[in-house]
Amino acid sequence: MSEHEISKAVVKRLPRYYRYLGDLINARVERIPSNELSDMMNVTASQIRQDLNNFGGFGQQGYGYNVKYLYNEIGKIIGLDKTYNMVVVGGGHLGQAIANYVKFEKRGFSIKCIFDINPELDGKMVRGIPIRMTDELPRFLRENDIQIAALTLPKSGAETVASVLVENGVKAIWNFAHTDLDLPEDVVVENVHLSESLMQLSYDLNHRRTMEKKS
Amino acid sequence: MSEHEISKAVVKRLPRYYRYLGDLINARVERIPSNELSDMMNVTASQIRQDLNNFGGFGQQGYGYNVKYLYNEIGKIIGLDKTYNMVVVGGGHLGQAIANYVKFEKRGFSIKCIFDINPELDGKMVRGIPIRMTDELPRFLRENDIQIAALTLPKSGAETVASVLVENGVKAIWNFAHTDLDLPEDVVVENVHLSESLMQLSYDLNHRRTMEKKS
Repeated sequence: MSEHEISKAVVKRLPRYYRYLGDLINARVERIPSNELSDMMNVTASQIRQDLNNFGGFGQQGYGYNVKYLYNEIGKIIGLDKTYNMVVVGGGHLGQAIANYVKFEKRGFSIKCIFDINPELDGKMVRGIPIRMTDELPRFLRENDIQIAALTLPKSGAETVASVLVENGVKAIWNFAHTDLDLPEDVVVENVHLSESLMQLSYDLNHRRTMEKKS
Repeated sequence: MSEHEISKAVVKRLPRYYRYLGDLINARVERIPSNELSDMMNVTASQIRQDLNNFGGFGQQGYGYNVKYLYNEIGKIIGLDKTYNMVVVGGGHLGQAIANYVKFEKRGFSIKCIFDINPELDGKMVRGIPIRMTDELPRFLRENDIQIAALTLPKSGAETVASVLVENGVKAIWNFAHTDLDLPEDVVVENVHLSESLMQLSYDLNHRRTMEKKS
């Protein structure tokens, strides 16, 4: 696999490595053998080696991984060494929940404003972040160099808002609306479809007996 | 692939089929050729056939799929022909956002109660669903035949609450807490780690130029 074609599956695992390494730093662990990291994360040591080899590999045979170094390097690969300006479009409970996550801010994702069409929310503050009306969105995007937008509004309004975002320079959309957005090639999207996630849980619950039979 | 070992990738696609077929029903489409469904969903017709063949296949060569029939059959596979009693543990914005999704209720997921440790929330109602204190959780679970619990509380409290859920008969956990839960084999879990999802978006945003180069 060339360095320009990292599989989606590997990318999906990077934040999990980052989380476990962060926990190790908090526990003041400086070095960890790949087999211990593997036990902790419940993946094989060879999987870990393969994943990290996509990025040049960070292991030192016999000495294990330097926790802090690996944490920082994975952080850089993910892009956590930079800061991002974000907006949230949709000021309902989900939008407010996202605005309330202090953790995102710590990782460099700075939420500058929340937008909604409900006039009752106009001017309200969520953790110091103002809610403004959606008609002010285009101007705000242009004037505040916004790179990322979270879409936490109903399906019906999502496509229109996505166009406005793209026209005004947003390059990454975190889409919670239950629809697949039609976006230009240079705009990246990450979908969080909650009802599809609940349906997967339902499937697993109903096919659980099969799993019991197997074991 | 035997019918008892449907891959996770196939299961992940089922809710998306279900969504598109639901949209077709709303648009009063009765029958759809596999190539049209494939164009609409942006997957190959052969992928669709393979996926559905895992469940016996539902196509009629030359006539396409019967939309309503396929919708209902996929619904049954997912388990949407039944109803489920649910609780939400964690009454913050995210928990309240989930309680507010009327759509879940329509699909058969009935949220009976929200639990929190904050006394200020005690007795509050969210869309007719009461918030109660977490110390009442074990008794409530036993008395109300709860099968599914959403965990929308901080990482620190998640493992303890998960034990209480499991001890009192909950068989499916929808985990929004940013930690991997250690659960018995017969309990299914679906993780929604929002910060990991945002990190994937960040990765994609930062590796976007590579994608442009390729095209």
